[in-house]
Amino acid sequence: MKKRTVVVLVLLAMVCGSGLTFALTGSSLANQAALGQGVLASAASGLKPDEVKKLGTALDLIQSNYYQDVDRTKLLDGAINGMTQSLDDPYSSYMGKKTAEEFEETIEGSFSGIGAEVSSENGNVVVVSPIKGSPAEKAGIRAKDVILTVNGESLHGLELNDAVAKIRGPKGSEAKLTIKRSGSAAPIEYTIIRDDVDVETVKAHMEPGKIGVIEITQFSLNTGERFKQELSTLEKEGMKGLVIDVRNDPGGVLSVVIDIAEQFVPKGKVIVQVEDKNKKRDQTLSKGSGKPYPVTLLMNKGSASASEILAGALQQSAGAKLMGENSFGKGTVQTSFNKQFDDGSLLKITIAKWLTPNGSWIHQKGLKPDIAVAQPDYFSVAPINKNATLKFNMNSDDVKNAQVMLDGLGYKPGRKDGYFDEKTASAVKSFQKAQKLGVTGAVDAKTAEALETELIKKIRDPKYDNQLKSAIAEVQKEITAAASKH
Amino acid sequence: MKKRTVVVLVLLAMVCGSGLTFALTGSSLANQAALGQGVLASAASGLKPDEVKKLGTALDLIQSNYYQDVDRTKLLDGAINGMTQSLDDPYSSYMGKKTAEEFEETIEGSFSGIGAEVSSENGNVVVVSPIKGSPAEKAGIRAKDVILTVNGESLHGLELNDAVAKIRGPKGSEAKLTIKRSGSAAPIEYTIIRDDVDVETVKAHMEPGKIGVIEITQFSLNTGERFKQELSTLEKEGMKGLVIDVRNDPGGVLSVVIDIAEQFVPKGKVIVQVEDKNKKRDQTLSKGSGKPYPVTLLMNKGSASASEILAGALQQSAGAKLMGENSFGKGTVQTSFNKQFDDGSLLKITIAKWLTPNGSWIHQKGLKPDIAVAQPDYFSVAPINKNATLKFNMNSDDVKNAQVMLDGLGYKPGRKDGYFDEKTASAVKSFQKAQKLGVTGAVDAKTAEALETELIKKIRDPKYDNQLKSAIAEVQKEITAAASKH
Repeated sequence: MKKRTVVVLVLLAMVCGSGLTFALTGSSLANQAALGQGVLASAASGLKPDEVKKLGTALDLIQSNYYQDVDRTKLLDGAINGMTQSLDDPYSSYMGKKTAEEFEETIEGSFSGIGAEVSSENGNVVVVSPIKGSPAEKAGIRAKDVILTVNGESLHGLELNDAVAKIRGPKGSEAKLTIKRSGSAAPIEYTIIRDDVDVETVKAHMEPGKIGVIEITQFSLNTGERFKQELSTLEKEGMKGLVIDVRNDPGGVLSVVIDIAEQFVPKGKVIVQVEDKNKKRDQTLSKGSGKPYPVTLLMNKGSASASEILAGALQQSAGAKLMGENSFGKGTVQTSFNKQFDDGSLLKITIAKWLTPNGSWIHQKGLKPDIAVAQPDYFSVAPINKNATLKFNMNSDDVKNAQVMLDGLGYKPGRKDGYFDEKTASAVKSFQKAQKLGVTGAVDAKTAEALETELIKKIRDPKYDNQLKSAIAEVQKEITAAASKH
Repeated sequence: MKKRTVVVLVLLAMVCGSGLTFALTGSSLANQAALGQGVLASAASGLKPDEVKKLGTALDLIQSNYYQDVDRTKLLDGAINGMTQSLDDPYSSYMGKKTAEEFEETIEGSFSGIGAEVSSENGNVVVVSPIKGSPAEKAGIRAKDVILTVNGESLHGLELNDAVAKIRGPKGSEAKLTIKRSGSAAPIEYTIIRDDVDVETVKAHMEPGKIGVIEITQFSLNTGERFKQELSTLEKEGMKGLVIDVRNDPGGVLSVVIDIAEQFVPKGKVIVQVEDKNKKRDQTLSKGSGKPYPVTLLMNKGSASASEILAGALQQSAGAKLMGENSFGKGTVQTSFNKQFDDGSLLKITIAKWLTPNGSWIHQKGLKPDIAVAQPDYFSVAPINKNATLKFNMNSDDVKNAQVMLDGLGYKPGRKDGYFDEKTASAVKSFQKAQKLGVTGAVDAKTAEALETELIKKIRDPKYDNQLKSAIAEVQKEITAAASKH
């Protein structure tokens, strides 16, 4: 069964809009090429004559005989794609110029645009928040603003990605926005000059009891510095314990995660080990000094790569508890090569395995949490198809989704297996009464929309984030235990 | 939802075991290479220096840096694979030596082995029928024989394909079989010398009312000759009308289907049109003379390529009715090139579109039947998972499958949506009573197996083949109508 999630409805699309699973690169972009060339120097040989002949024959056969026109460059790019695919490694890949540029932006954690997080609500593009210091913030764009048009083009009804593509643009270019803001009758016009904007990859706040929470959304080149700033601020505020949240963090740059881990791992202890083709291991030892306060790391099945390096280092070398769900399981390191091509294309190649401090390779297995905490099922329920009204004695996935939503909102649908029985009908009635809808006991389009709206409110409300609450409670427990020892 | 079918349980695997979707080749293997080279001659140029450099750089980067050992030949094959994939055409592909050999066997309609159709029943490999004139038939292998071991290796519990791979072998090699046959207590031993065996791609029989039925399972090189033989036999027996059954026939060789169509399409009328890259159309006109008796063609969504050429020709140039389901929709012609490579590999390239006589391109649309006849839903129901007992008030896909089976067997489960209600329970009880099983009203493993066994019997019984029965009835109607005109 295909599982789309309601989270789709609430998902925040960064204006950068680039792909979520990006590589753990072995070094910064600046010296990757150098690293690559160094390795290359010992083995470079180029194609042998019989290889040139075979590839040329295939290319000519296709170009001469295919029933449609063939773009020769596309065939060549296809050939390099095919080489990486023959490795049977999802993390080795070849990118054309455009994809390579987006990839590099993700690595760098910056992009050029107006700098606003936006989401899609009922076909409208709504600002979630302007990024601090961005052109959007400076111009006065506010959260909940609805962006109606960009340079005269309506965004209404567009897919979020397509809308974002229209808002983005090169540094220095002009984006004329028409904004609808609640409280003002007429649309407001803004002219914003696009600029380089740093993606906010680190967000922090202090919970009651002086427990800090730092969320890392990806490990970009600027993430280490941002993390240090936020950590330092929390420490100055008297933080007694810390939750690091890497849920749905797909990873990033190796040196950056090492920098972050180093602040928690005592001097001389292992942060990560990198093992090359010849099984030679290179250990990275901490030059830091550890922290006196307890730390837990919150992860889920979307925590991959650099997130897992951090998890392994904190668990095995800094005594931190891992909480949440089993992590993704990506135990390899990639380097990207682009200087070798003169057309902007890029080859990302898996160059090594990484192992946790105790030497385990978590590839395709992930790290197990010390304390498993699941998120309730309504966090991943699919939207209800609104073409048909769901009623008594029906049986379908849509009924199932409605039941999960009702249950999540505290109404008791009796069952969550998709069969619409009497209890489901009375739960629907209770919900409709509370929402001041017609009390029919059947889920029509209006009721379905109300269910989704209410559920999204609940999902967005941190007080229903079981995993975060458990992680905070665990830190609190450790603070108390440590205090009682003194 | 993934839909495995009970048909999997009854599916006959030809000992040849090669892939089902094979290409419609533009010419016989013997002259394909020549055709290819002819076209090539005008455009061959080989790789340009910058192309050699780019491909060589990529290959070297991968080979030098990848974290595991890389087979250079695999990278090169991957490159050619990648070229074909960049075309975004599922019918253009590159095959290594082994796959190319299997492909050629399919085209030729012959393979080397013992020559027995086998199926898998409860983990046993059971002979469905020995192929006429094959080593298996000559040795005395019979239908329903269970093949226990081959050259000392047990076949029990193997996937059908893996078992077939053990039974197959090169011409002249020895297969020592141990056979269990009902009626003899001790296993029987056979030593069979494998030989070239023609796949039976044409099967024919006469229905009451002198209506002939010819089933074509694929259009291999020898299929045209076999079709003529069977047609001639039926005609000699006084056939008054014909059903040609190409259900689940994935296609085959263009010249072969033209040969077959020619026997029904009157002289000078179009059989098929082939359109090249430059929109130049090449019409194939019939040199035959048509038939005086009515013909219907039976097809389904598994009827592709050459099957659709036959359908189009018979419908639009021979007045035949198309019956059954919408066909697959493959409107392109491939040619395979292998002489250009000296390592046995093969490049299959889509070289043209084909159009029906009236000029329509059915690609990704298929042909619509003149008279739509569906097969009952139980023909494609999935097997029941036997780990859990299904009972009242449960709700699952397994319950749904059980309901479809009950309904198909004439018990009335009340609903077929997966909710196990009272009516389903009483249908189960009736079935259990009829089968002399414990009457519990719940579907345990035994009941599930009995349901599947009974259903398979029904599916195998031609008298429940709605589509075939309708096709025969239509031919009968046309015979009667023609007779009343005289």
